[in-house]
Amino acid sequence: MSRPGNRRPECHKINRDLFVLTYGALVAQLCKDYEKDEDVNNYLDKMGYGIGIRLVEDFLARSCVKKCHSYSEIADLIAQVAFKMYLGITPSVTRNESSRNEFSLILDKNPLVEFVEELPAGRSSLCYCNLLCGVIRGALEMIHLTADVTFLQDRLKGDKVTEIGITFLKKLEEKKCRRKK
Amino acid sequence: MSRPGNRRPECHKINRDLFVLTYGALVAQLCKDYEKDEDVNNYLDKMGYGIGIRLVEDFLARSCVKKCHSYSEIADLIAQVAFKMYLGITPSVTRNESSRNEFSLILDKNPLVEFVEELPAGRSSLCYCNLLCGVIRGALEMIHLTADVTFLQDRLKGDKVTEIGITFLKKLEEKKCRRKK
Repeated sequence: MSRPGNRRPECHKINRDLFVLTYGALVAQLCKDYEKDEDVNNYLDKMGYGIGIRLVEDFLARSCVKKCHSYSEIADLIAQVAFKMYLGITPSVTRNESSRNEFSLILDKNPLVEFVEELPAGRSSLCYCNLLCGVIRGALEMIHLTADVTFLQDRLKGDKVTEIGITFLKKLEEKKCRRKK
Repeated sequence: MSRPGNRRPECHKINRDLFVLTYGALVAQLCKDYEKDEDVNNYLDKMGYGIGIRLVEDFLARSCVKKCHSYSEIADLIAQVAFKMYLGITPSVTRNESSRNEFSLILDKNPLVEFVEELPAGRSSLCYCNLLCGVIRGALEMIHLTADVTFLQDRLKGDKVTEIGITFLKKLEEKKCRRKK
């Protein structure tokens, strides 16, 4: 993927509704294709992973992020820069006090479900937005970080908030989270 | 679909790359699902139709369009307002001199194919962006206009330009292209 560095920021923006409805069509198609919710979830994650590994280069170039010194900093970066840049929202970050490598992104708003009132009938285990987990996982892997990324709570399932859990599985080696030159 | 009227314009914008890559995942999935290019094209059109009939209300509300007096005006509106609003591009419009109801949108740039260098192997009849035709068709139908919308040329197929043909099939009845109240 080659990304010209001089593209104007506004060229990167499109209408969100078109994306949200297209994403809905994708999920509906996968629900047709796969009987088990788990399979749909896995497939969305896998698709997201493929997107994440492609997006990260552009993200690093445009966000001007160069160094991260801790998992905490990375979690903040995902919430405050990446989510803002790609979805126009800023989740809050919570930390698991007993574990230095576990974080949660709390999404007060989730644009991806703007047109979704409830999960499709018979699809109670569907993680509708699982693509996002894959995107995060793929992007992190490209900066040499392995992580489990899953939905821990989901308003579409009746939870009070939507929460994405990120558990970093490898130690951050010598500030490897650094933009490649 | 209910759309609160006071949403700030910037809330409607998201990063285009995320959309483009998600759309690519959708097309790839359909290519897995359907052996024939024609079936993939039909399915993309059908999905787009579903999106178009949902988008149009929001489009009319935000574009403040109230009346169209001719097919020509509608074609210009699609190119200059709708494409600009949803994809950030403005195709040029050409008219078929011998027919008052045939128009073409010429896309110099097509953001949807930004990451696509060529059609997938064995998929030479794929209309990669056929979702767009469906969106236009669905949106027009919601304002009581029936139209054939198809790709006439496609750079991905080696054509010099990408051209979407719109043929209006019904006469515009008494300015029916008017925002419903």
